[in-house]
Order: sequence, then structure tokens, then C-alpha cells
Amino acid sequence: MNAPDCLLITGFEPFDGESVNPSAQLVLRLQGEAIAPGARVEAVVLPCEFGAALQVLEAHVDRLRPRLVLCCGQAGGRTALSFERVAINLDDARIPDNAGAQPIDRPVQAAGPAAYFTTLPVKAMTQALRGAGVPAEVSYTAGTFVCNHVFYGLMHLAQRRPWLRQAGFMHLPYLPEQAAQHPHAASMALDTMGAGLRLALRTALATTQDLQVSEGTLC
Amino acid sequence: MNAPDCLLITGFEPFDGESVNPSAQLVLRLQGEAIAPGARVEAVVLPCEFGAALQVLEAHVDRLRPRLVLCCGQAGGRTALSFERVAINLDDARIPDNAGAQPIDRPVQAAGPAAYFTTLPVKAMTQALRGAGVPAEVSYTAGTFVCNHVFYGLMHLAQRRPWLRQAGFMHLPYLPEQAAQHPHAASMALDTMGAGLRLALRTALATTQDLQVSEGTLC
Amino acid sequence: MNAPDCLLITGFEPFDGESVNPSAQLVLRLQGEAIAPGARVEAVVLPCEFGAALQVLEAHVDRLRPRLVLCCGQAGGRTALSFERVAINLDDARIPDNAGAQPIDRPVQAAGPAAYFTTLPVKAMTQALRGAGVPAEVSYTAGTFVCNHVFYGLMHLAQRRPWLRQAGFMHLPYLPEQAAQHPHAASMALDTMGAGLRLALRTALATTQDLQVSEGTLC
Amino acid sequence: MNAPDCLLITGFEPFDGESVNPSAQLVLRLQGEAIAPGARVEAVVLPCEFGAALQVLEAHVDRLRPRLVLCCGQAGGRTALSFERVAINLDDARIPDNAGAQPIDRPVQAAGPAAYFTTLPVKAMTQALRGAGVPAEVSYTAGTFVCNHVFYGLMHLAQRRPWLRQAGFMHLPYLPEQAAQHPHAASMALDTMGAGLRLALRTALATTQDLQVSEGTLC
Repeated sequence: MNAPDCLLITGFEPFDGESVNPSAQLVLRLQGEAIAPGARVEAVVLPCEFGAALQVLEAHVDRLRPRLVLCCGQAGGRTALSFERVAINLDDARIPDNAGAQPIDRPVQAAGPAAYFTTLPVKAMTQALRGAGVPAEVSYTAGTFVCNHVFYGLMHLAQRRPWLRQAGFMHLPYLPEQAAQHPHAASMALDTMGAGLRLALRTALATTQDLQVSEGTLC
Repeated sequence: MNAPDCLLITGFEPFDGESVNPSAQLVLRLQGEAIAPGARVEAVVLPCEFGAALQVLEAHVDRLRPRLVLCCGQAGGRTALSFERVAINLDDARIPDNAGAQPIDRPVQAAGPAAYFTTLPVKAMTQALRGAGVPAEVSYTAGTFVCNHVFYGLMHLAQRRPWLRQAGFMHLPYLPEQAAQHPHAASMALDTMGAGLRLALRTALATTQDLQVSEGTLC
Repeated sequence: MNAPDCLLITGFEPFDGESVNPSAQLVLRLQGEAIAPGARVEAVVLPCEFGAALQVLEAHVDRLRPRLVLCCGQAGGRTALSFERVAINLDDARIPDNAGAQPIDRPVQAAGPAAYFTTLPVKAMTQALRGAGVPAEVSYTAGTFVCNHVFYGLMHLAQRRPWLRQAGFMHLPYLPEQAAQHPHAASMALDTMGAGLRLALRTALATTQDLQVSEGTLC
Repeated sequence: MNAPDCLLITGFEPFDGESVNPSAQLVLRLQGEAIAPGARVEAVVLPCEFGAALQVLEAHVDRLRPRLVLCCGQAGGRTALSFERVAINLDDARIPDNAGAQPIDRPVQAAGPAAYFTTLPVKAMTQALRGAGVPAEVSYTAGTFVCNHVFYGLMHLAQRRPWLRQAGFMHLPYLPEQAAQHPHAASMALDTMGAGLRLALRTALATTQDLQVSEGTLC
């Protein structure tokens, strides 16, 4: 496989006491799919661990040389598929990761800039999903846990992989079976997430310049 | 059809500027299903109008003589299937109904009591759904619009239909295609609602005494 | 003191692990105030216990013979002063009360109706507060814990006290010092609550017929 | 006045259809206060306009040469005083600013980095406020409107003002009088905000190294 053909999507193992992670289920469901002519999906599940998650990601990126990478993670409490716009150079763990590490106020990359913006056309993707009936939004914080850590690390390594033209992160609501255990938490069916992810990938592939519409927030 | 065989479920036409109503789609999906041995579902879509909705409901109840009636309605913003516990004798419309009526501080039934409690085993139903991975909850307010109007009217007419042994109301979140137009609103897939409704009906049929567990709220 | 002169307001002792209860602080702050010509406030703090709370309330009502009673309670998570419209005949305790009792699916009054509506002009009160810059709302559920228990019991005993012309319940947000310990919970300063309560009482005294405006909810 | 003596705090003019802005009221309330020995507060209200707000800020910074600058802005819907951790180099206006400008996907500073972190000890400040009963939190997004614009611009100009040792941004909930017009929106009294701001400034002055505790978010 050469770079133009491969789209890498990643999810995470369960964490925070959950027995499932929607991101792992979602990406495995698309494994091997030919999402568009000449575009085949490779799915990888990352450990929910600072450091290790990035090492695994980097190995797969360099093995597959994908033209697009979309990392996915669970955002319990959100209502929509959230396309993250900015990754920050900060680890600040409210809970331990799956290996027991709990970094506080540490940079993801000691020599990296304060933040990276995604190179995905997140507005075109958001509007495409909404038009197809899938709740979607642009988000301006990916948190400070392993999700942001992987997102930042992805954008950092993309600096030196010119063939990796589009990279970013998508946060997912709980699955219904998770929300059934969390009073008043929103959820989204795996089928809806799958339809959204396929459309998001196709929209990214087809978009060379993002839409000039606001998806900003007042605060 | 005789009473022991029929379960009547109702939904509403779209209202409040929506082009769809999840409750109509949901109940029509189960129309004619044999949900359990000797239990067949009849589905009816009610107009979203004070007065008329109840007249249509009453006609179908007396035609079908169901042993169970579960009316369903949209509750935009909620995250779970909500089994309503109490209907109040009050119409207080924040917006006009589909016929343009907007009653304020009027009783549903001038001679009725202040409230009725559902006769469905809402705790057993809630726990069954959660156990099957469907977000569910008991609610203590059905609002003051047409949903509560129909719920109260249903419980009122059930007083004089001894064959109508179980009656109640279930509120539904938005469908994903609706939430795609309402930033930050939760949603639920129609498949998830359908699985929940089938299990709710089966649980009601199989339950003669509700669970002695709390599903109460502090406020 | 005779009935026309006295307004009884009640709060609760702290519960649910809190060290304070805004309702106790609020009502004690108004103790003895001449809120309007010929109208003096008496404040009582009730135990947060099923049964005992109502016994204490009834003793004070019969001792003071107030023309108006407004019971107040904490509703952690709400954003506004909430005037409750309806009390239901149901105890369903999610947590034990301060005496360790946790009734489930028990009526407040075995021989009482399913519900009572408040006799306070809650819409006039809500609009008066908003006009004065105090967040206020009409609520259609007082929960199923001791607050609703006291509200229902109050309305029940008012049936046989013709001199008790106006009775109802107001829920309060957390105090700021409480919200400081509950991430993302709203709060309200005691000063704001005090201004709101004074205005609410004065509006109730001055209003013989409530406003014909909707404060209803869709669900 | 020389640099060690001055603390500059800024607020904004009303925007988004509001007739007041809590940030303007808050900072003017502290104008001229000697908040700590040798530390005097200067308050400025900025226009809610891209570009102009930063020009006014820069002029006051260079006139006053403050050792600390804390810009404040309204964040309708939040429940707590929010200390922003990161400013991003992005203007994306969901609504026009007060001059009618609505930039989309434009950098605050064409030659600036993607983001700056605050130089305030936001964790020490958050914990101090909570300990004093004032709801407070660390936030990881200041939005993409004029608040973030000013925050980013402040951190950018601080790079070349070595005497400006501490700089950052605090978001404020609505005032009660604003929330009275926004159903279900949280609010905070100006007195509570004032106590919080004084304590925040004193804590910043007294803290040379921030606390090593997590105030991170999972997503």
C-alpha cells in the first residue's frame, strides 16, 4: 500500500472504569473498508496511556504512510461528533491513565510549540454530517488527558511527514449502553457514529479548502 | 381483537417547527408486531392539538379495548427514554399547538382530580432497559403541553375502562437528524428507541408488581 | 399575633452531606421583618426528615395561624428561584433522610389526593422577580424527597385551615460556597435570594388573581 | 507609578444584545484599590471589537507598565469564575463584534505562534477562591471571539514586556439581572465576583510557583 491509498483511523482502549470505548468499536467497524476510490481504511486501537499511545501511533503512521490520520476518542457527556480544532502542548491528568501514570503540567513534547491546529477541513466535515442528519460540531478543546496528548503528538509528527496531508481528532459521545449507566448523559448509536465517520472521511478527501463559515464560540 | 390481545401505542405529529416527530416514527415501526405471545401492537399517530388529540385517543381506546396503552411524545433535550410517573390536570401552553390554540392555566378535565399516577411498572421498565443498554429514567413531570394533556386524559378515561389495566406515557429524546439542527441537544437513534419500546412493553406485560427500588429525585 | 399579620417561611437543616442549607440561612435572615404593612415574617427551620418535618410545620402553622406559608428548600443544580406549582402524594427517597429513613413509593397522606396545586400566584411572583433582576422560574416538579413531602403536607393541612389563604414552596440554588465544591453547579448569593424572597412575599400579598401568561413547559 | 505597583484589570463593553457586561462592572468596582501592599489596581473597559480592543489594551499596558494584567470577559452560561489556561491564534466570530466585524479563520497575529499559555498561577488562584467559597475553575478554551482575541494579544505583547510578569484572562458568569432574561442560565452576584477577583489578584501576587495539582479535563 502506498500513501495515497491509506487512511489511518485510531481509537482507544476503555478507560475511566468503562468496559467499552466507543472509539475502539467505531474504528474497528471500518477496518479494511474502501471508503472512496483509492482510499482504504486501516484501523488501530491505541492503549490509553501517555507516551505508549503515541509510540504505537507513530509506528503505525510510519508503517502505513497514510495520507490522512483521524484519531478518535471518547468524550463522555458530549452530544455530537466533535471535530477538534486545536491540540495543546500540555498533559494534565485528572485521573491516572491505564498504566497508572498521572502527569501534571507536563508538555507533550518538550521542544514543541504551545499548540497545533488540525489540518482537516473541520467545517466542511461538520456541515456535511449535519446535512446527513448526524449531530456534529467543531470543538476548541480536546481536554488535557490522553486524547489531547495523542492529538498533539499526531500533529507534531505530521510536521515531518509531508505525505501526511490531513490529520486531526474526533471526539465521540458515550454509546447508549454506557449512558444507561450515567444518569442524564447523552449518547449516540454506533451506527450513527459509523455513518458520521464515513462521511467525515469522504468529505476530508474531497475538500481542498475548508468552508468560510463560522463555527466559532463566544466563550 | 379482544382486550387481552391489544397493546395500543401512540405518537404525535411533528410540532414546534420540526418536520418529524420521533414518537410517530417509533410507534409506526412497531405497528402490527406480536410483541409477546397473545399481545399485538396497534399504533396510532395523534394530532398535536389540545382536545382533538384526546378525542382521537379515546376513539381508538374504545375501538380496540387494549389492555395496555403507552402514549409517546417528543421531549427535545432529554437524554433517555423517560417513563412519566404523574400527569397533572393543567394545560399551560408555552407555544400554540398545531391548531393554533394556546390554553393557559386550564384544567384538562374540569371535574378531574389534580393528578393521576401511571399504572405502568415504570421502575421495572427502567431497570430492564438499562440492563439491555438503553438509556432510561423515571420522570416526575410531563410538562404542561399536549403530552401531559394526553397523558392526563388517558389516565382519566382509564378510570372507567377496567379492561385497560396499564396506562402511561413515555417521553423520547430528539432523533439524531433533529439534534443535528439543535446545538448541544442530545439524541437517540430510532433503532435504540425501538429496542427500548419493545422491551418496555414486554416488561410491563410481565410485571404485576413494580420493583421496590428508588428512582426518586431530590428536587 | 393574629392570622392576617403573620407570614410563615420555613427552611431545612443541611442534608446530603452539605454543612449548610441555603433555605435555613435565607429564612432566618428575614425572621421578624415587617415585610409589608401589617405583615410580619416568622421563620422556622425544619428537620430534613420525613414525618417529623411535617409535624414541626403543622405545630407552627397552628400556633401562628399565618395567612401565607412559603416553605423553602435547596435544589442543588438549579439556576433560579423556583416556584413549585404542584405537590404530589409520593415519597420516593433516593438517599436516606437525616433520620436514616428512606421511604419508597409511599404516599405522603394515605387518604390524600394524588396532588395539590399551590395557591400562590407563582406567575406574578416569577415576573416580579425577573423584573427586579432576580432569576426566577415556575417548576412543575418538587422531586420526591422531603421537599415535596413538606410541600404536599402543607397543602393538605391548608385544606382545613381557611385562614391559610396562600401556601406554596420555593426551591433555591446552591449558595456560592456550596457550588465551590460541586464542579459546574450553578449558585446564587444569599443577598440575591433575600431580595427575591422579600419581593416574592410582597407580590403574593398584593396579588389576588395570578397573571394570565404562560410559564409552562413543553416537557 | 512604576511597574511593581500596578495591576491592570480590564473588562468589556456590553455585546450580544446585552445592556450590561459583568466584566466592566467588576473591574470598575476595584478601580484604584490598594489590593495588597504596594499593589494598586487600574481598571480599563475595552471596546468589544476585534483589533480596537487590543490597541486600547496595548496603549494602557505601555502607559501603566503593570506587573500583572488580568483581562476579564463575560461567558454567558458558565457557572464559575474561569481562569483561562490557553489563548489560541484564531479569530472565528459566530456573531459580529460591536463594530460589525465578523472575522472567520483569521489569526490574531499573523506572525504569532498557534497559542500562548497564561503566566498566572491559575491552580493556586482556583483553589484559593474555592477555599473562600467562590466557585472557580480552570478552563482550556476562551472561545474564538473578542475575549480570546484580547487574551492572545495580551500574551503576545507580554513577550516583549519583561516587566509584565503575570498575564491572563478570567471569564465571568452572567450577572443575576442578565440570567433573569435567559432561562436556565447560571449567574453570579457582583459581590461574589468582586471577592473572587480580589483574592485572585492577591494569590497571583503571592505565588511564585503554581500548585502541582491537576485541574485538567478528560475532554
